Amino acid sequence: MRIDEASRDTLISRERELAARYAALAGAGLALDVTRGKPSAAQLDLSDGLDGVLGGNYRGEDGTDLRNYGGLDGLPEAKRLFAPVLQVPASNVLVGGNSSLTLMWQCALYGMQFGFAGPESAWSRHGKVRFICPVPGYDRHFSICEHLGIEMLTVPMTPTGPDMDAVEALLASDPSIRGMWVVPRFSNPTGAVCDEQTVARCAALARRAAPGFRLFWDDAYAVHALAADAPRLASLHEACVRLGTEDSVLLFGSTSKITHAGAGVAFLAASEPNLRAIRHHMGFASIGPDKVNQRRHVAFLGGFDGLLAHMEGHAALLRPRFAAVLDTLERELGGSGMGSWSRPRGGYFVSFDTRPGLAREVVRLAAEAGVKLTPAGATFPYGKDPEDRNIRIAPSFPTVAEIERAMDVFVVCVQLASVRQRLA
Amino acid sequence: MRIDEASRDTLISRERELAARYAALAGAGLALDVTRGKPSAAQLDLSDGLDGVLGGNYRGEDGTDLRNYGGLDGLPEAKRLFAPVLQVPASNVLVGGNSSLTLMWQCALYGMQFGFAGPESAWSRHGKVRFICPVPGYDRHFSICEHLGIEMLTVPMTPTGPDMDAVEALLASDPSIRGMWVVPRFSNPTGAVCDEQTVARCAALARRAAPGFRLFWDDAYAVHALAADAPRLASLHEACVRLGTEDSVLLFGSTSKITHAGAGVAFLAASEPNLRAIRHHMGFASIGPDKVNQRRHVAFLGGFDGLLAHMEGHAALLRPRFAAVLDTLERELGGSGMGSWSRPRGGYFVSFDTRPGLAREVVRLAAEAGVKLTPAGATFPYGKDPEDRNIRIAPSFPTVAEIERAMDVFVVCVQLASVRQRLA
Repeated sequence: MRIDEASRDTLISRERELAARYAALAGAGLALDVTRGKPSAAQLDLSDGLDGVLGGNYRGEDGTDLRNYGGLDGLPEAKRLFAPVLQVPASNVLVGGNSSLTLMWQCALYGMQFGFAGPESAWSRHGKVRFICPVPGYDRHFSICEHLGIEMLTVPMTPTGPDMDAVEALLASDPSIRGMWVVPRFSNPTGAVCDEQTVARCAALARRAAPGFRLFWDDAYAVHALAADAPRLASLHEACVRLGTEDSVLLFGSTSKITHAGAGVAFLAASEPNLRAIRHHMGFASIGPDKVNQRRHVAFLGGFDGLLAHMEGHAALLRPRFAAVLDTLERELGGSGMGSWSRPRGGYFVSFDTRPGLAREVVRLAAEAGVKLTPAGATFPYGKDPEDRNIRIAPSFPTVAEIERAMDVFVVCVQLASVRQRLA
Repeated sequence: MRIDEASRDTLISRERELAARYAALAGAGLALDVTRGKPSAAQLDLSDGLDGVLGGNYRGEDGTDLRNYGGLDGLPEAKRLFAPVLQVPASNVLVGGNSSLTLMWQCALYGMQFGFAGPESAWSRHGKVRFICPVPGYDRHFSICEHLGIEMLTVPMTPTGPDMDAVEALLASDPSIRGMWVVPRFSNPTGAVCDEQTVARCAALARRAAPGFRLFWDDAYAVHALAADAPRLASLHEACVRLGTEDSVLLFGSTSKITHAGAGVAFLAASEPNLRAIRHHMGFASIGPDKVNQRRHVAFLGGFDGLLAHMEGHAALLRPRFAAVLDTLERELGGSGMGSWSRPRGGYFVSFDTRPGLAREVVRLAAEAGVKLTPAGATFPYGKDPEDRNIRIAPSFPTVAEIERAMDVFVVCVQLASVRQRLA
């Protein structure tokens, strides 16, 4: 049934049928959760060799006693391991604690309050501060902005990254814009990958932006392809070097979805002037990160090739989960006009758009039937999806069987909400 | 020779003799460092069982998968382990990353910018912000204040803690005071231990202080006694409960000088309203700390009794090092009037006071003879020791033989500077 073409009678009988199916599902006592982009236990098992991998050797490659204080910006061997993840030279890498979210929050705070080029360069000293946020996007980026008092302006995500025409137009008209978030590869939640032209235009933003502008390049899914032929990402760093705009970008990554989500290692890449500022500010709050855990990661993953081989284990576990989502959507909603969705080649999410005005209703219906979905609106700043359409589906954590059950409920909720909307 | 009573002739011949000894030492090519309060390799060896201690078991006591995201305020079993260190109930504990310095910086930032009781309670919204700093004190406390724009007012440390008359007088006269630093047991650098009355008066400060006042109780050396009969610390938490002032104090600790300095676990204790605010602000920057490492510490240390037994290993290594410092000072400077020093019963430092105006000169002389001392002034806010007297000696890291050599140089530098000052 293509919903726009269905007759009222068809819709009425379809509503009755769907309501009955929904009631049956809701009575089944389900308790399923497809909200959080966290690895499954099977994925975490892949890295259980971490604890104990040092075999009593607590020395770094240069003889550093890893157990003692110091080494604010991380171990040299860890910088070398993670540099190719962000496609930067190792000398531009800082390896930190267990969370890239922390590094991003710190850098946003430094930009806002302390400055990347002396106190006078702090954004907050020059009036209102705004960031550009491609939508749908990652709620924790938006939360950082809210916490720090940064206003958010949205631009649409396209399949090849942020709508760069919209970005450039905003920068031309608004000098209070000091930053922008991008998840460049397998974007959260749409799975979009920035194409080469988008990367080049991102590298050139500093030429249009207000002084102190920083692009927050959250490459959280840099090596998280579901298949070998997934789109690659051009190096932002190289594009910046060509233009001399290295100071305008900050790149972030972590092993949270490579090894153990809570006990991994986070890293960032930046130009030397930015690194100098970051180390300076960071040095007031820390004597150094956990070098032992950094060394564990080097010992366990071996090198970048080892890291990529390790990621194939994740892909093998994730592929059937994504397939379970996409197969159900295609089978039940394909050609129905009741929704559209992304077909990601990597990352952690499927992004689903309902007909306008239905996302909240679908989430509500699913919740009442025992299927927890990410709250509608979460993928937009201030939790406000202006069209009330976007729902983020996170299939990594549940089993394939659980995903299939959850998606059976989900599609019935979408169908029921869509039919009722047409009837209203 | 008692310097104040020595004749000019005596001083002249003494200067000649000391200058010769100094020249001989300076020519010996020494390279010794007694600057940093960091554990020695032998101390770190005590905890080498940490890596691998989990034996493949990544489950918390309540079944939590330690490898995954979450648990912002730490593992329940880690809270229980560290609660008696701070002498608080486990329900008041938050266990964080690898650094109590980070927790202190975060809490100072929260107080300054974000508020412990809503945005309006942020100190920075109400004009100038000052902290009371007992001196000599810990340079990194002072750095946090400088970084965050908090002005510092000093009060003297006494052998039983901060001069509380001076503290109370400052609070009575200056409503911009929003906080105070205290290292309550084996203070950095004097080794002072707050006596019961001082703890009680600290708990009562909220009654005299401006709204939002927070006492930063950095109990870094809570379990770091050199001998079993070292002075104990009364529970600040219990004193606060008696007065209903729990919201006015924040307690900090870590395992940095219990297990591995760079790869340990940090924790804080606070009232439930404070914890709520801390978790709220922290939640924008972190999904949770490294729970695997917290569990390693629980597995390795066992419980509070195990932790105390483990600390005896540290004391056994530290005692001869402190003895090497104190024996040389007593032998060479006892009764000379050329300096006074602390005789700490725990902690990491010996605090030495030269005659007024000589600390910088002694540090300079020692450096030229190959002995690195903490820069004079480092134990005072803004690096300014008004009397230029205090020098912090850190004997934990070098070997006993190295300390003996360093102290031989040190005492000659003190004697030479003192004699020359009298002659000038």
